Amino acid sequence: MRTGVWLVGARGSVAVTSIVGAAAVRAGLTEPIGCVTEHPVLRSDALPGLGDLVFGGHDIATISVAKKAEALAEAGVVPGRLVATLHDELVAVDEEIRPLPHGTAAEVAAAVTADLLDFRRRHDLARVVVVNVASTEAAAAPHPAHTSLETLRDALDTLPPSSLMAYAAFEAGCSFVDFTPSTGARLPALHELAVLQNVAYAGHDGKTGETLIKSVLAPMFAMRNLRVKSWSGTNLLGGGDGATLAEPAANAAKSASKQRVLSETLGYQPDGHTRIEYVPDIGDFKTAWDLITFAGFLGTPMRMEFTWHGCDSALAAPLVLDLARLTAAAHGAGRVGPLTELAFFFKDPLGEVDHALGAQFEALAVFVRSL
Amino acid sequence: MRTGVWLVGARGSVAVTSIVGAAAVRAGLTEPIGCVTEHPVLRSDALPGLGDLVFGGHDIATISVAKKAEALAEAGVVPGRLVATLHDELVAVDEEIRPLPHGTAAEVAAAVTADLLDFRRRHDLARVVVVNVASTEAAAAPHPAHTSLETLRDALDTLPPSSLMAYAAFEAGCSFVDFTPSTGARLPALHELAVLQNVAYAGHDGKTGETLIKSVLAPMFAMRNLRVKSWSGTNLLGGGDGATLAEPAANAAKSASKQRVLSETLGYQPDGHTRIEYVPDIGDFKTAWDLITFAGFLGTPMRMEFTWHGCDSALAAPLVLDLARLTAAAHGAGRVGPLTELAFFFKDPLGEVDHALGAQFEALAVFVRSL
Amino acid sequence: MRTGVWLVGARGSVAVTSIVGAAAVRAGLTEPIGCVTEHPVLRSDALPGLGDLVFGGHDIATISVAKKAEALAEAGVVPGRLVATLHDELVAVDEEIRPLPHGTAAEVAAAVTADLLDFRRRHDLARVVVVNVASTEAAAAPHPAHTSLETLRDALDTLPPSSLMAYAAFEAGCSFVDFTPSTGARLPALHELAVLQNVAYAGHDGKTGETLIKSVLAPMFAMRNLRVKSWSGTNLLGGGDGATLAEPAANAAKSASKQRVLSETLGYQPDGHTRIEYVPDIGDFKTAWDLITFAGFLGTPMRMEFTWHGCDSALAAPLVLDLARLTAAAHGAGRVGPLTELAFFFKDPLGEVDHALGAQFEALAVFVRSL
Amino acid sequence: MRTGVWLVGARGSVAVTSIVGAAAVRAGLTEPIGCVTEHPVLRSDALPGLGDLVFGGHDIATISVAKKAEALAEAGVVPGRLVATLHDELVAVDEEIRPLPHGTAAEVAAAVTADLLDFRRRHDLARVVVVNVASTEAAAAPHPAHTSLETLRDALDTLPPSSLMAYAAFEAGCSFVDFTPSTGARLPALHELAVLQNVAYAGHDGKTGETLIKSVLAPMFAMRNLRVKSWSGTNLLGGGDGATLAEPAANAAKSASKQRVLSETLGYQPDGHTRIEYVPDIGDFKTAWDLITFAGFLGTPMRMEFTWHGCDSALAAPLVLDLARLTAAAHGAGRVGPLTELAFFFKDPLGEVDHALGAQFEALAVFVRSL
Repeated sequence: MRTGVWLVGARGSVAVTSIVGAAAVRAGLTEPIGCVTEHPVLRSDALPGLGDLVFGGHDIATISVAKKAEALAEAGVVPGRLVATLHDELVAVDEEIRPLPHGTAAEVAAAVTADLLDFRRRHDLARVVVVNVASTEAAAAPHPAHTSLETLRDALDTLPPSSLMAYAAFEAGCSFVDFTPSTGARLPALHELAVLQNVAYAGHDGKTGETLIKSVLAPMFAMRNLRVKSWSGTNLLGGGDGATLAEPAANAAKSASKQRVLSETLGYQPDGHTRIEYVPDIGDFKTAWDLITFAGFLGTPMRMEFTWHGCDSALAAPLVLDLARLTAAAHGAGRVGPLTELAFFFKDPLGEVDHALGAQFEALAVFVRSL
Repeated sequence: MRTGVWLVGARGSVAVTSIVGAAAVRAGLTEPIGCVTEHPVLRSDALPGLGDLVFGGHDIATISVAKKAEALAEAGVVPGRLVATLHDELVAVDEEIRPLPHGTAAEVAAAVTADLLDFRRRHDLARVVVVNVASTEAAAAPHPAHTSLETLRDALDTLPPSSLMAYAAFEAGCSFVDFTPSTGARLPALHELAVLQNVAYAGHDGKTGETLIKSVLAPMFAMRNLRVKSWSGTNLLGGGDGATLAEPAANAAKSASKQRVLSETLGYQPDGHTRIEYVPDIGDFKTAWDLITFAGFLGTPMRMEFTWHGCDSALAAPLVLDLARLTAAAHGAGRVGPLTELAFFFKDPLGEVDHALGAQFEALAVFVRSL
Repeated sequence: MRTGVWLVGARGSVAVTSIVGAAAVRAGLTEPIGCVTEHPVLRSDALPGLGDLVFGGHDIATISVAKKAEALAEAGVVPGRLVATLHDELVAVDEEIRPLPHGTAAEVAAAVTADLLDFRRRHDLARVVVVNVASTEAAAAPHPAHTSLETLRDALDTLPPSSLMAYAAFEAGCSFVDFTPSTGARLPALHELAVLQNVAYAGHDGKTGETLIKSVLAPMFAMRNLRVKSWSGTNLLGGGDGATLAEPAANAAKSASKQRVLSETLGYQPDGHTRIEYVPDIGDFKTAWDLITFAGFLGTPMRMEFTWHGCDSALAAPLVLDLARLTAAAHGAGRVGPLTELAFFFKDPLGEVDHALGAQFEALAVFVRSL
Repeated sequence: MRTGVWLVGARGSVAVTSIVGAAAVRAGLTEPIGCVTEHPVLRSDALPGLGDLVFGGHDIATISVAKKAEALAEAGVVPGRLVATLHDELVAVDEEIRPLPHGTAAEVAAAVTADLLDFRRRHDLARVVVVNVASTEAAAAPHPAHTSLETLRDALDTLPPSSLMAYAAFEAGCSFVDFTPSTGARLPALHELAVLQNVAYAGHDGKTGETLIKSVLAPMFAMRNLRVKSWSGTNLLGGGDGATLAEPAANAAKSASKQRVLSETLGYQPDGHTRIEYVPDIGDFKTAWDLITFAGFLGTPMRMEFTWHGCDSALAAPLVLDLARLTAAAHGAGRVGPLTELAFFFKDPLGEVDHALGAQFEALAVFVRSL
C-alpha cells in the first residue's frame, strides 16, 4: 500500500527531518522514536508502513534536500552519519520536489493539482496526503466568497496560500493536513469541496512543545480542583520559524492557539499571556519557560515553573509521518471531512474536542481501531 | 450522616490544616479549593458532606490545635483571619484529641480501639475513618508473624506504629487510610482482619508534589513515544517532615515510592534518582526540581526541567478530607479490603493499578458513581 | 543631624515600606537587612543615622500610610506584627504627606518648594533629600527649552512631572534622587540649577532584581572571556508598578535601561531582549526569568538560566534609606551635581561609569570614606 | 620561549580538549574563547604564546589522542571538522604521552622525573609545567611523614598519586598545577621541596561551573547586605568524572571545596548542601541547579534559582592553557612556592585569599603586570 506524502514546504527543516527519518527507519538505521503510530496501543496494520511512504512536494526554496540535511546535522537536529549514509535516497527525493508554480491563483491551483495527479500516477500510489509544513502565514481576514464552493470558484485569488493548497489537494482527490496555524482547509467552501471529493482533512498547528506540556498540566490542576491564578509563557525560537513567528501578525495567530487549551481545560482564563520571541542564537531549538501560579486549600499561594528545551523539527517530523499514515488510512476507510479524532496532534484542533492529552490519546486509539 | 475523622498525628500541620479548612468551609468562609470530591465530575450525594465531618485523634505532641493553627498562619500556610474567626471551633476539637496511650502494644491497641468506640458513640457517628497523617516511619522489616491474623495476635509488639493503629482501627470497626509511606495496613494479617471486620482501607503516601507532576508528565512522554533517558529529582523540605524524611531510612522509603511511577508508566527505568533533603529555612513549603533528558526522533537529545514550590500541608489537607469522605462512603456501601480505585491520591497505590493520573481520575469517577 | 526624606509618591509601596522599616529599626524591632550603608565596609559616622530620618512627601493617592502598611502586610511584604506595633508612628507620618498641589506648572513647583522649606523649618532639619519613588512616566520627548535654565524658566509646563519635582527640590535647596527610570534631573537646565543652588542629585532606576544579577553575571562572563551569544529576559510583575510598566512607552524606557549593563560590560550586544509583563496575581512580588546562551572554548554551546522571585518594595526600601543618607551626607560635604559614585544603586547610572557591581561597590566605599 | 605542558591524565577529556584547542588556535582556526590570558586586561608579552606550548604527559588509558578527540566531537564538546583538520598534529602528540610507569613509589617518581627531563631536553624547552587533570582521588588521610621533606623521602609510598606527581615534577625542576581537588602539592614536605628546587605551584580544583557562579552571586548578596538563609545545590554529571565523583569519598572532597566560597564570602554558613550525582545520559555536560533563599528588608522571604548547563571540558581546557602560561611565566620570573594570585581559577585556592571573583580578577591582573 504505497502512499504519497506531498509536503508543502518540502525543503524546510520539518519536511527534511521527516524525509531523513523515514529513510533511516526504512533502512533499519534507527528506531521510530517519537512516532506515535508505533506506540504499542496504536500500532495497526490498517496504516501504511513507514517504509511505504513516498515523498514529494513544493517549495519556493531551492536548497537541495541533501544540503538541507547536512545543515540540520551541523545544527544537531539529525545525526551526521545518517545523512551521509542516506545521501542517495535524499538526492532521489529532490527529483520529486517542484518549485511553487507561477500564475494566477487558478493557474497555481491547477498546476499543483496536476503535479499531485502526476505524482500519484508515476509512483502508482494508493493515495496521496498533502501536508502543509510551510512557514506560518499571517492570520487571514475572512472573506464572503469563502462561505460556499460556488462563490469560491471565482475568487480563488482571495485565498491565503495554505487554503489554495488545500483547494488544489482536494481537487486532486487528496486529503490535506495542516501542521501550521495557517487557515488551510478551515473554510466552509473548502469543507464543501472536501465532502464533494470524498477526502478528509486534519489540523491545526502541531503540538510539539509548550502546548504539549500545557495539555497535561492544565488537566492535572483541573482534576485536583486547584485554582490556576496565572499562566505566563515565553517561547524563545531561533531558526526560520522564529523569525516568521516574531512577526506580530503570525505571533498573534500562534499565541491565541497556544492559550486555547487553558480556558477549555480549566473552564476559566487565568491571568497571563504567551509570547514568542526570535533569538537567532538558539537556532533550531526552542526554549520555552512557563510560570504557573495557583491557589491551594484556603487560598495558599503556590507556583510551578518549567523550562522546555526542545528541537521543534525533531518533535514535529515523526508527527508528520504519523499524520500522513493516519490520514491516508482514514481516507482509505472512507472517512470524509474533518478528522477530529486527531486532536492529539494539534494545538488548535478541529471540532469541539477535549483538550486533555490523555482523553485525546484515547480518542485516537478508538479511531485507529475503527480503521 | 455525621462521620468521624480520627487523625493519627492530629496536632501536626496536615491534620490541623484539614481541621481549619473543614471548619472554614462549613462556616462558608472559603471555597473548597483542592477538594477533589468537589470537582463537578465527582460530586456525589453518596458522600458525607464536608460540614458533616467530626474530628478527633491521637498525637504525642501537646500543642493545642489553635496554637498550631496560629503557627501555620505565621508560616503562610493558612490565612490568619480564618484562624482568628474560627478560634472557638478549634478549641472544641482539642477536646477530642488524646495523647498516645502508654503500655504494651496490646494495651495501646486496646486503648485506641476504646477511644474510637467512645468517639463514635458520644457523637452518634454513622462511622469513623482513621487517617494516618503522622510522621513517616523508617521502612519496617518484614516479620513472619505478620502473615496471618492468628500469629499476629501474639506478636503485636512487632508491628510498626502505623500498623498498630490500623489494627486498632479495624478492631473498632473503622476503615483506615494511610496518607504516609509507612507500612500501615499493608500486611497480610491486617488484610485478614479488615475482611473479618468488613472494613476498607486505602493508601499509601499522598501524592502532593513532584510525584503528582510525574504522574502526568511520564504518561505524556509515553503517549508521544519519546524515550526518557534520565529523570533526576531533588526535593528540598523544611518543617518537621523534612527533618524526618532526611533520615536515611525514611528517605529510602519515600524515594522508592516516588520512582515507581516512572518504571510503571514508561515500561523501563531511566537513569537518575530522587533525593530528599532537609533545608530548615524552607519551612512548611517544599521546592522540588526535576531534570528530564529525553531523546526525540533520530535520537536528538532534548531536556525539560521543572520547579515545584508547593505547601505540602495545603495540598494534603483537602485530600485528607476527600479520602475520609470517600472511604466512609465506601464502607457504608459495603466495600471491604483495599480501595484500589483511590490510586489517584497516592504515590504508592495499593494493587496493580495504572499510574497515569488521567486514568486514575477516571477510575475514581467510576468508583464514586458506584457508591 | 536630623535629616528630612521627602518622598514623591509617599503613599506607594516602596515609600511606605521605607517608612515602616526606618521606624522598626529605630524602635530596635528589626535589623537593617538590605541596608547597604550598614555593611561593615560602608558604615560611617559621616552619614545621618537611620533613626535621624524624618519622613514627609507628596502623593496623589489618599490611602493612609497605616492602611497601606496593613495592605503590604497582607501581601507578605512587611510583617503584620510590626505594622500593628508601629501604628502610632505611621499615623504621625501621615501629617507630613501632602496631596499633589494643583495649578500651572509654575504654581505646582512653587507650592512644592514652599512645602519643602516649611518641612525643613518645622522639623529643624539639617537638610532634606527629595526621593522620587512615584510610578514610572512614559519616556519624555526632548524639548529645546530644557537645554538652559534661562529658557526653562518660561517653559516649566514642558517638563515631565519627575523633572518638575527636581526643579522644585533644587529651588528649595534640596538634593534630589531619582529611584525611577523617569527623566528627573537629567536635563542640562536642571543640572545648571543644581550647580547654582549647590545641591547634588543621583539616579536613575533602582537596581533591585534582574539587572542586579546581570551586573554580576555579565562581568563573570567577561572576566572568563566567554562569549555571550544571547541574553533574553522576562519580567512578570503584579501590583501597581506592573500595570504602569506594561504600558508600551514605560516598558520601552525601563527595558532600555535594563539592557545597558550588557553592552557596557561585555563590549558587544548579544541577541535577545528584556520584556516586562503585567500579571496581576503576582502582586507585590516579581518573577524574572533570564536565559543566557554562551560559547566556550572552540565554540561549544552552553547555557545558563535563572529565576529571581523578589519583592521589589522590600528590595527597594532599604536602598531608598541608603540613598537619602548618602545624598544628605554628600550635600553636607559640599558635593554638587551628579553623584556618579552612587552607580551601585542604579540600573541606568549617571555618568560614564563601570557597570560591574564589584567595581561600583569599591567606588562607593571610596566615596563614603571621602565624606 | 617554547614551553612544555605535561599533562597528568593526558588522554582524558580536559587534556585532549586543551590539546585540540591549542592546535586550533595555533593554526588560526579558532579564536581563544574562554582563555582568560587573552582578555585585554591580562594579555602580556611575559607569557609564553599559545602557539609556543608543547604537550606531553602520562596516562593509564591507552586510547589515542585522535580517537579521544573524535569521541569528544561525537559528544558535542569539540567541532568535528577541527578534529579532522588537525589529525596529524594530534597523532604527533601521542608520541609524547607515556603510560604511567610501574614499580615502587620511588621508582615511579624517578621514572616520571626522567620523562620530564627527557621531554624538556628533546624539545629544547625553556621550562615545563606539570598540570594534573587526572580523575579526582578520594580525600587522602594525613600522614606524619608528610610534614617534612626529610621524612617524606623514605615514605614516598604513603603519598596519594597526585602528590607523587608533584614530587616528581619538583624533582625535575618543574612547576606543578593541580586542576583537581586531589591533595597534589598541598603537603608541608612538598612545599619544602618546591622551595628547595625554586619552583612554583598552584591549585586546587578548577572553577568551571556552579562554584564560578557562587563566586559572583555570594558577593552580590554580601554587598547588598541581604541575608542568605539557604543555598542548596545539585550537580548532575555524566562522563567519567561523574562516575568518579559520585564515589562518596570523592564527593565529600569536592562538595567541601564547593561550599567554602559561601562561608568565606558571606561570613556565615547558610543552610543547605551541595550534592554531586552521576547521571550517565548527561555525558560530558553537567547540569547544576541551585536554590538560594534569602531575606530582604524586614525579613521578607525571597528566592533565586539558577540552572547551569555547561560542558566541563570546554570550560576547563582554556583554563589549563592559561595556568600553564601563567605558571611558566611566574617560574621564569623567579616566583617560588604557592601562587596564591591564581585563586581566580580555583574552587579551593591556596592561601588566605578573597573568594569574590572580581577581587580575584584584580589580583590576577596585578600578578600578570608584575611578571
